[in-house]
Amino acid sequence: MPSTPTINSERLWQRLMEMAKFGSTAAGGCNRQALTDEDAAGRELFMDWCRQAGCDVVVDPIGNIFARRAGRNMNAGIVMTGSHLDTQPSGGKFDGIYGVLAGLEVIESLNDHDIETDRPFEVVVWTNEEGCRFDPAMMGSAVWSGSLPLEEAYATQDLEGHTVEAELDRIGHKGPARTQQDIHAAFELHIEQGPILETEGKEVGVVTGVQHMCRYRIRLLGQETHAGPSPMPLRRDPMMAVGKILNDLYALADEYAPGARVTIGYINAQPGSPNTVPGVVDFTVDLRHPDTEPFQSMQSACEQSISAACENYGLDNEVNLVWEAPGVTFDSNCIESVRSAVAAQDYTAIDMISGAGHDACNIAAVAPISMIFIPCDGGLSHNEAENINQQQAEAGANILLHAILDASRD
Amino acid sequence: MPSTPTINSERLWQRLMEMAKFGSTAAGGCNRQALTDEDAAGRELFMDWCRQAGCDVVVDPIGNIFARRAGRNMNAGIVMTGSHLDTQPSGGKFDGIYGVLAGLEVIESLNDHDIETDRPFEVVVWTNEEGCRFDPAMMGSAVWSGSLPLEEAYATQDLEGHTVEAELDRIGHKGPARTQQDIHAAFELHIEQGPILETEGKEVGVVTGVQHMCRYRIRLLGQETHAGPSPMPLRRDPMMAVGKILNDLYALADEYAPGARVTIGYINAQPGSPNTVPGVVDFTVDLRHPDTEPFQSMQSACEQSISAACENYGLDNEVNLVWEAPGVTFDSNCIESVRSAVAAQDYTAIDMISGAGHDACNIAAVAPISMIFIPCDGGLSHNEAENINQQQAEAGANILLHAILDASRD
Repeated sequence: MPSTPTINSERLWQRLMEMAKFGSTAAGGCNRQALTDEDAAGRELFMDWCRQAGCDVVVDPIGNIFARRAGRNMNAGIVMTGSHLDTQPSGGKFDGIYGVLAGLEVIESLNDHDIETDRPFEVVVWTNEEGCRFDPAMMGSAVWSGSLPLEEAYATQDLEGHTVEAELDRIGHKGPARTQQDIHAAFELHIEQGPILETEGKEVGVVTGVQHMCRYRIRLLGQETHAGPSPMPLRRDPMMAVGKILNDLYALADEYAPGARVTIGYINAQPGSPNTVPGVVDFTVDLRHPDTEPFQSMQSACEQSISAACENYGLDNEVNLVWEAPGVTFDSNCIESVRSAVAAQDYTAIDMISGAGHDACNIAAVAPISMIFIPCDGGLSHNEAENINQQQAEAGANILLHAILDASRD
Repeated sequence: MPSTPTINSERLWQRLMEMAKFGSTAAGGCNRQALTDEDAAGRELFMDWCRQAGCDVVVDPIGNIFARRAGRNMNAGIVMTGSHLDTQPSGGKFDGIYGVLAGLEVIESLNDHDIETDRPFEVVVWTNEEGCRFDPAMMGSAVWSGSLPLEEAYATQDLEGHTVEAELDRIGHKGPARTQQDIHAAFELHIEQGPILETEGKEVGVVTGVQHMCRYRIRLLGQETHAGPSPMPLRRDPMMAVGKILNDLYALADEYAPGARVTIGYINAQPGSPNTVPGVVDFTVDLRHPDTEPFQSMQSACEQSISAACENYGLDNEVNLVWEAPGVTFDSNCIESVRSAVAAQDYTAIDMISGAGHDACNIAAVAPISMIFIPCDGGLSHNEAENINQQQAEAGANILLHAILDASRD
């Protein structure tokens, strides 16, 4: 075993570009939503590459793909890495995909360098991380880790009424039940999806945890009427309440700065006619904070703002907390493996908290795991302009390789 | 001629109910958008009824239908009434339709009472008043009165790319060019679409004019990115600007109360994913006020609010004033004919300003016209629950009959 094996960044980059062809968009991004034909094509290509690299490849009942490289000790707890291949409707080429293909690149590099590890090593593709076609997000890892019943995941429908189960069947990725070998250590390598590493001029983020986050779906119900004649005080106009609520929510973000994140990503007024006061407005609220108390305060303040605005304008409301993920503290041994990988290669790094949810949050409930971030241009993600360069991709994959080598010692 | 002829409210009510079957909705409203199959069926039924009542019926190039009852003096300036048969997507049974069928009921009643008027009388159906399928609203009356070139109206497309011209052709309602006889007086009878008559307990509104109104389509352009990691101060989130703009706009409504009307009827965020900061938000703003100066101040303040919010959040914007209708003062002789009709029958009435635009606004540019309102339940309109009762319908039609008789004297 050479003292500092490195990955082949050219091969990794080529594969990132090849995978990006499935669902590629005119603006240079990807639309490869979970369990579509494009996603199926990407998954098949990944499995082919893994088989060519000598892996055993299996698919579980929710479509998670496990590519396994044998270790010297077949019964030792395994080392795992993984992320996802699906994208947002106007997503990029790297969110998720980079972590999966870097995992495969670790296998290829171990093969190139004739390195046999003590422990078996698995690269995983988690099904439907994005949650844009099928809610909730991080579905595959949630089922795998036991927090989401398989039948519930199967029954989830997209807007056209297709279920997850039918789509898994359709693309031939509904596998048999599988027993997971004990996991000794796991890592998820990901683009930061934020501007901190770029702003700080660092190559690697040693991710020690994930912030608290939740998502509401909110419906405000008023009275549809003509835009002209109705005097303002007699209206029951949900948009008036939306104005108040938006300002309250963004004020919350200021109050709980710098950790707070407030996003209204979806809004729609019905019937949507310019000269009709809307009867119904639907919108989503995504709240996040690294610390428990401010996070809970933001949740109560959000709910109170909605109640107060509806009371004020004579509206009914439906407030559904559709998703909540408590903050996560990653495993200290895994974090140490990442730190040792940074130190061994002289990359610049800082500790950080993840602002986004990742499959690693689900894994953390049942196995030791931590994450590694690399910068992305302008911190942009969930955007067709999402971008990294080959050198940045190389740095993260080398950190992953060495963290895995560190953790693989029996 | 009997001293106080009256209309047949049973016949009028039956016809309102019969017309409401075309495009009827489960909730008791109508979806009979302009130039759809449902609209075509309603128009054909109206033309049949008019022919059966002895009228000459013609259709002009933009599909306006003119049903003419001869007068003693064929060359005298005519008396006209009219409104529209098309509805909003979730509209009611009376908005527009009531004015058209009450006009036909006046013809039937004149026939019943063997009354020959001095002047010819025309009942008109104006094409596409609602403007929900084909923008702009009040299209047929705009073309007829010369404010909208026919070719421009023809080229207007719905969301599926159908043009007005193709749809007129398809339903067989693109008629030959026609010379309009001089108009001596015109009236438009309509439900109030607001709560004032009901609140005041009056049966008839003598409408002396229409408020100023305009409509903006606004696009705010920011930076699409992931909802989690991006710190709030680094975001360029159009929804943050929407919060400020909504509050500014509703504050304007307070500042210019009680005349001001502010409606945001359409809003949409792209890509519309709950965990993505939207890159684009589109919305409409409908502003109205009866008086010129406050109206213009509201327009400037609206535009300034958008500029300031975009400046503050680093956004680009597109502000399009897609429609503007200056306020209208109706013809004093027509108003006097309505007053005399009220006095002759002891209905309770008040003077009022229309909050909504009507075809009468276009007619007013080229012919003497005024409007008559009757109350509707709760002031509701552009709503499937829009409602009036038979007695209310009768009152308005009797006022229309007598206003027409008054104006028809040569």
